[in-house]
Amino acid sequence: MSEPWTLHPDRALPADPVTRPVAREIYAAVADLPLVSMHGHVDVAAFADDAPFGDPAELLVVPDHYLTRMLVSQGETLPRLGIGATADEDVETDPRAIWRRFCAGWKHFRGTPTRYWLEHELVEIFGVTQRPSAETADALYDQVAARLAEPGFRPRALLDRFDIEVIATTDPAWATLDAHAKLAADGYGDRVLPTFRPDPLLHTGRPGWRDDVARLAEAAGVDVTGYDRYLDALRTQRERFVAAGARATDHGHLSADTTPLDDGEARRVFDAALAGTVTAAEAAAFSGHMLFQMAAMSAEDGLVMQLHPGVLRDHASGPHAAFGPDRGYDIPVVTEYTRALRPVLDAFGHHPGFRMIAFTVDEDVYSRELAPLAGVYPALRLGAPWWFLDAPDAMRRFREAVTETAGFSNTSGFVDDTRAYCSIPARHDLARRVDAGYLAGLVVEHRLDLDEALDVAVDLAYRLPLAAYARP
Amino acid sequence: MSEPWTLHPDRALPADPVTRPVAREIYAAVADLPLVSMHGHVDVAAFADDAPFGDPAELLVVPDHYLTRMLVSQGETLPRLGIGATADEDVETDPRAIWRRFCAGWKHFRGTPTRYWLEHELVEIFGVTQRPSAETADALYDQVAARLAEPGFRPRALLDRFDIEVIATTDPAWATLDAHAKLAADGYGDRVLPTFRPDPLLHTGRPGWRDDVARLAEAAGVDVTGYDRYLDALRTQRERFVAAGARATDHGHLSADTTPLDDGEARRVFDAALAGTVTAAEAAAFSGHMLFQMAAMSAEDGLVMQLHPGVLRDHASGPHAAFGPDRGYDIPVVTEYTRALRPVLDAFGHHPGFRMIAFTVDEDVYSRELAPLAGVYPALRLGAPWWFLDAPDAMRRFREAVTETAGFSNTSGFVDDTRAYCSIPARHDLARRVDAGYLAGLVVEHRLDLDEALDVAVDLAYRLPLAAYARP
Amino acid sequence: MSEPWTLHPDRALPADPVTRPVAREIYAAVADLPLVSMHGHVDVAAFADDAPFGDPAELLVVPDHYLTRMLVSQGETLPRLGIGATADEDVETDPRAIWRRFCAGWKHFRGTPTRYWLEHELVEIFGVTQRPSAETADALYDQVAARLAEPGFRPRALLDRFDIEVIATTDPAWATLDAHAKLAADGYGDRVLPTFRPDPLLHTGRPGWRDDVARLAEAAGVDVTGYDRYLDALRTQRERFVAAGARATDHGHLSADTTPLDDGEARRVFDAALAGTVTAAEAAAFSGHMLFQMAAMSAEDGLVMQLHPGVLRDHASGPHAAFGPDRGYDIPVVTEYTRALRPVLDAFGHHPGFRMIAFTVDEDVYSRELAPLAGVYPALRLGAPWWFLDAPDAMRRFREAVTETAGFSNTSGFVDDTRAYCSIPARHDLARRVDAGYLAGLVVEHRLDLDEALDVAVDLAYRLPLAAYARP
Repeated sequence: MSEPWTLHPDRALPADPVTRPVAREIYAAVADLPLVSMHGHVDVAAFADDAPFGDPAELLVVPDHYLTRMLVSQGETLPRLGIGATADEDVETDPRAIWRRFCAGWKHFRGTPTRYWLEHELVEIFGVTQRPSAETADALYDQVAARLAEPGFRPRALLDRFDIEVIATTDPAWATLDAHAKLAADGYGDRVLPTFRPDPLLHTGRPGWRDDVARLAEAAGVDVTGYDRYLDALRTQRERFVAAGARATDHGHLSADTTPLDDGEARRVFDAALAGTVTAAEAAAFSGHMLFQMAAMSAEDGLVMQLHPGVLRDHASGPHAAFGPDRGYDIPVVTEYTRALRPVLDAFGHHPGFRMIAFTVDEDVYSRELAPLAGVYPALRLGAPWWFLDAPDAMRRFREAVTETAGFSNTSGFVDDTRAYCSIPARHDLARRVDAGYLAGLVVEHRLDLDEALDVAVDLAYRLPLAAYARP
Repeated sequence: MSEPWTLHPDRALPADPVTRPVAREIYAAVADLPLVSMHGHVDVAAFADDAPFGDPAELLVVPDHYLTRMLVSQGETLPRLGIGATADEDVETDPRAIWRRFCAGWKHFRGTPTRYWLEHELVEIFGVTQRPSAETADALYDQVAARLAEPGFRPRALLDRFDIEVIATTDPAWATLDAHAKLAADGYGDRVLPTFRPDPLLHTGRPGWRDDVARLAEAAGVDVTGYDRYLDALRTQRERFVAAGARATDHGHLSADTTPLDDGEARRVFDAALAGTVTAAEAAAFSGHMLFQMAAMSAEDGLVMQLHPGVLRDHASGPHAAFGPDRGYDIPVVTEYTRALRPVLDAFGHHPGFRMIAFTVDEDVYSRELAPLAGVYPALRLGAPWWFLDAPDAMRRFREAVTETAGFSNTSGFVDDTRAYCSIPARHDLARRVDAGYLAGLVVEHRLDLDEALDVAVDLAYRLPLAAYARP
Repeated sequence: MSEPWTLHPDRALPADPVTRPVAREIYAAVADLPLVSMHGHVDVAAFADDAPFGDPAELLVVPDHYLTRMLVSQGETLPRLGIGATADEDVETDPRAIWRRFCAGWKHFRGTPTRYWLEHELVEIFGVTQRPSAETADALYDQVAARLAEPGFRPRALLDRFDIEVIATTDPAWATLDAHAKLAADGYGDRVLPTFRPDPLLHTGRPGWRDDVARLAEAAGVDVTGYDRYLDALRTQRERFVAAGARATDHGHLSADTTPLDDGEARRVFDAALAGTVTAAEAAAFSGHMLFQMAAMSAEDGLVMQLHPGVLRDHASGPHAAFGPDRGYDIPVVTEYTRALRPVLDAFGHHPGFRMIAFTVDEDVYSRELAPLAGVYPALRLGAPWWFLDAPDAMRRFREAVTETAGFSNTSGFVDDTRAYCSIPARHDLARRVDAGYLAGLVVEHRLDLDEALDVAVDLAYRLPLAAYARP
């Protein structure tokens, strides 16, 4: 191994000898800025309870579907990785066995961001000095486990260690936000914020939809007898989220469609859904309609609207039935934005109280649709490269495809999106490095002056995310 | 500021120390070639009248929708930029106030070609030595205004100063070409050429379509009572354009579809359009049919057919109603070429009298569709990166995606497309630099010999555009 | 010319002075590995008969549609290149005249892989020292012709010279595999393998479909009276291929659709096809259904399923009528994989006996669909960049778009796809260079250690193709 497992200070910076020193200088200007983590999936209970994390496998392997999906693609099975049992296979209950399987499969992560983030985490957070492998697995397990037992590795302590200025959780629309209230009482009210996520309520064709509407009704204290009361209940819960410090909503839809229905049709479809007779086409139309309604409410209450469309969930029926959602079987599809966002942008694209941040896992739309839209509508910001695209080469492609049309000011700056709490510093650090490299490229090609590049770097790492998620 | 506002001689060339000297050598071979500007939107009246340009805002800010759209995306409004009034807002009439807003928003152009072109223009043409900002705005305004008052800054003088060998204007199909006749009488007949643009006449569903047909009828001296006389009138006007030196037609359609209708159906749809009863589907089919007819006429009269499809115009209804078209709200959509161009290429793709130059704002088709098509059909050339893609990184992506399948000879060489007259030299210079960088990359990777790269560079900058727009 | 026609040892390696030495070291580790050529279109008869190749034009120009299509795009005609006659034009019968036209058009290949491969072939295999041109054409012709007369240039001798460890031919599903039997008898049974290609039999709407079914029936000795016997016949022939050493099947479909029909509907459509009354929609549905059936059979017999979708064949009707298929008029179209492959992956994606290798000429799906799919389904591997994408910049884009999600282990390693036998070493060498450059980039950015990069390079060049095409 060529000197592994001490993190190279120049990692992920461009290699050519003209660009690297400039990239270093730009990176140095942002390396130590606090982290603004406005979108994520760390469970609020972690912060509210502040209990120690479990074992290394439970923290770093089992819940990370980037990681388990790669091991599955190379022949492991989810039961052997501790996810769940099937008819044919028991679930592995020994965390050390799971950890060994992860370490044995380390080579398959070569060239992926998972490898990059984990190297950062293991070295920087857990002090690991050996590369994972079948041979080193046990030693690493013991070392990580020992650290996790220390008080400095509890969730709140890590907030300080990671220098997280603010972090948002993602919470169901029917949440009562008790955990956030506890956090506020403990002085974390400005640091751990809720995010309003109403997806299950907007997809009327889902099996559990009526149950979820009942949850909403109960939380909001509104008797949801029809469409109008359903909107009332949503509005009530949005107010609760605003009061608890929420800055944003989040929406994961298959399509970016935002076409509104007329009120009569919306009422009719809602009633059909309550009656269990809604068709797939009606449900799809209603979910687009509801994105429009969410935008209308955002224009009133100022919650920033995050849109994450274009993912076909649960591609494989067998694993879905056995293990549930979020197991690595969510696959992107072609996603259209120009026509899909037109209703919302036509109605609210110049509204001073409205802001939308659009994400994509279909990078083909960067230069064709998203950058041209964000380059003219004041309400629209482009989110950072999302999910499969939150990786060094993909981040570089994002800047190259977007900047020439939308500039930097129309992007959100870096937004991480993870349930892997310990990967957050690595993700931000990597984004800062990639952006520093991109900016250095502009400087050495004399397309930007160095003072400007330094200013942009701070925007991207810190000021733009704060601004993008400030309620307008 | 790190030495701004003297243009660096190596700007937009690759930075690595091996490639840059080769790129410099290639660029030097083309830097001083005359400009061939075969497609553009400078008003012919500017050349015919040769009147002085107005104030700095009127010349450089108000008509440039690249520029105003970016300012709007960051919170300015079109009335405040001098575009027009709305119910809520008066139009700004003080050009200095407009100029100040532009200068104050300068930072938002970082990383965009607008920034690159304007830096070139301000420094090279107007002798500006300070970067635009709120602080420098007035001084810059005065300096540019003073220059614009000089005789050397009139449109015809700039033709010489810019070393423009030939420039094409874009003219409605019903134009009588009087301005071009005046230019011919003044000795500019080979230097300022008309281009035949029939778009409004081909989109039968447009509100003003019948008025435009009446204009065509009057110009052509043909009584357009039906479809056949409509074709006659178009043919007559094409002949007028050919006689006035036109080399090309230009077609902006939402889709690239070229499927012909049979004559009976074409007549029927045309009559329905005259009667005001044409449906949207009929109008779309007819516009595709008319692209086929235009190709058939091109195969006869040799006018090179430029196709610019794939843009959804006037995305926002409010700004469209208030300010009209071409205000920055035209957004690309997915555009298909393989099937869409099949009728025309099957019929005329090997015809010795036919040439089509295809442009796109959907770069996803470069390697999948356009390069494979241009790499076999002798009639098809790929136009230069267009509009949002006329920018350094996008131009590099174009070459990388297209060359391996279509080579260089099947591309048009550089074609600018602008209503911003003073940006023409900057645009050509930038394209020459980016192509020099791409070619230098091939040379230093030993994929091309230097003598070949030098020859290709001259092709791309000068010989290919002349050849592509020579009537076959 | 800047020292042409000695192949530079660093060709196609990154130029920057930091990356190149690392790339050289990685390339050196794979440069001399044997060639594994698991997919191709060299006629098995060449190996079975081992007759000398014909003249230079017959070997290098006439059958290479990459080459003839480019010359056609620049004004040559297929008759003048020896392909066939038309009503207006006789076919050229003088190979030297054809060769001269190729040499005269050499400049049009600049920047294309054809140029790169041919330079490699002419210099390395034929000892040519001058660049092709109108002036050098005759000398080159004589030199190549002289070499072709030598015994060392016969097909089997070249297997050794090229260091081809194993090569697969592509054979119709009704093949009796006599040529492969002869090769086995001569000791080449493990070195030249057949591949089962049933395409014509699966597209029931084709004019010659019934004749091809009759061929299948005869070869299999099965009376194909209906759908069930048709499946039997296919199964029987697959067994014959397996017995002859086949490792894979190959499928070229317009769409990647794999939706199965129920048995009754499949029987009904098959009967309609036999009766000549199948509709285009039925034929399309049946071909998707048959991909599912082929996958089911692969899960049983272990033949690796290669899928090459997304090409619209014979785009121009005139050349198709005059010259037949494979003349350069096959053009890619948008191709969807996420939904299209779902039926097969849902059914067999975790089956231990099934493996699919998916190729594309639509690179827009790399990061959006193919990498996410291959990154979770154990049965799916991504094939190497195919056809128009088998070129240096396109190969680099493939790695950059795919690796961050799918890693290296989920790709097939290099797979060439050519009927140009003499280009095989050049193609493999180029792929090894491009991969070395990509890996070197990861190393110098400290995203991969050098020992890992060296290991991956050997995987990509040698171990992964062997493993991907090993029957599971």
